[in-house]
Amino acid sequence: MKLFYAPGTCALASHIALEEAGAEFAAIRLDFGADEQRKPDYLAINPKGRVPALVTDRGILTENPAILAFIAHSYPAANLAPLHDPFAFAQVQSFNSYLCATVHVAHAHRRRGYRWADDQSSFDDMKRKVPETVGACFDLIERAMFKGPWVMGEAYSICDPYLFTIAEWLESDGVDPTRFPKVHDHRRRMAERPAVKRALAQEGRA
Amino acid sequence: MKLFYAPGTCALASHIALEEAGAEFAAIRLDFGADEQRKPDYLAINPKGRVPALVTDRGILTENPAILAFIAHSYPAANLAPLHDPFAFAQVQSFNSYLCATVHVAHAHRRRGYRWADDQSSFDDMKRKVPETVGACFDLIERAMFKGPWVMGEAYSICDPYLFTIAEWLESDGVDPTRFPKVHDHRRRMAERPAVKRALAQEGRA
Repeated sequence: MKLFYAPGTCALASHIALEEAGAEFAAIRLDFGADEQRKPDYLAINPKGRVPALVTDRGILTENPAILAFIAHSYPAANLAPLHDPFAFAQVQSFNSYLCATVHVAHAHRRRGYRWADDQSSFDDMKRKVPETVGACFDLIERAMFKGPWVMGEAYSICDPYLFTIAEWLESDGVDPTRFPKVHDHRRRMAERPAVKRALAQEGRA
Repeated sequence: MKLFYAPGTCALASHIALEEAGAEFAAIRLDFGADEQRKPDYLAINPKGRVPALVTDRGILTENPAILAFIAHSYPAANLAPLHDPFAFAQVQSFNSYLCATVHVAHAHRRRGYRWADDQSSFDDMKRKVPETVGACFDLIERAMFKGPWVMGEAYSICDPYLFTIAEWLESDGVDPTRFPKVHDHRRRMAERPAVKRALAQEGRA
């Protein structure tokens, strides 16, 4: 398998999960500074022009919640999701959907306002609001969603690398991470895991 | 089970899937005009203040991609997802993630700009761009994602009610639906399904 990623992006979630699963894969770096994600070679792989994209022998998968579920199903011995409990599995998908569609989207308004508007004044307005919106998302995670010690409780799952990845953006989003003690401690414990260290090192961030 | 919904929202996707599955459930309407989704009674059910929320005997689920996966797993006889093929199941989750995190989000900038900005000029700017952004999403779906005759090919799946639900917003988003012949025909065929008719009738939209 090949995982296409760029450093500092949400692709880290899938990258960590592949490491946790003990998968054999090549991590292929895209240079977002050179706009490689929008060049024909990459658009043939992922027409969305985004990361992550996972190339498998069955075809290509995009979107973290899907790639993470695929990894959990493909490496059942790694115990990365409650595969035989439809309700518990749906809770995992619900948490990851929230990260994907609400938290990541709130964050994206800081530097990618051009996706949804055209004027510089709108971009500035969106950027000013990011600490409030991202902060509100993490308030909800801390108060109502995070079970502890891992996201889903006693069992580590594909929710954990995804939360870690997005929580890593808090400081640059202008949010004080110490406002969320459980998430903050989770981040510290995640950073100590060998799989996380390997993924960060491979991305040149360790 | 109880499904909390509001007419005209994305909750219709889960509503249709419950009907397709032959599930026993009560559909409970929230009055968004009276802001019922932000009142304490409902926030105790879904602290996000959104729909859909599915109350089950195991607990409450939110987020369409999660509820849809739960319905598919809970009613395997309805054949709403390729439950025993991790790659094909991930493709379903990938499509639904795209609807949830990109297409629905593009649409939401038309009337819910206050989620991401504060100034009226930003809301106006966002609203002006919706025909372009939603149109680009459906271009990609038509060109690269929709397999036909159903979203995932020969087999009807939990992707179909979700696509139908969001495609129903095209006209109000200022996008000509006939630009996307496959999606447009899909919408027509979906509207003829008994499960879709029952869900729309229950929501007072038939």
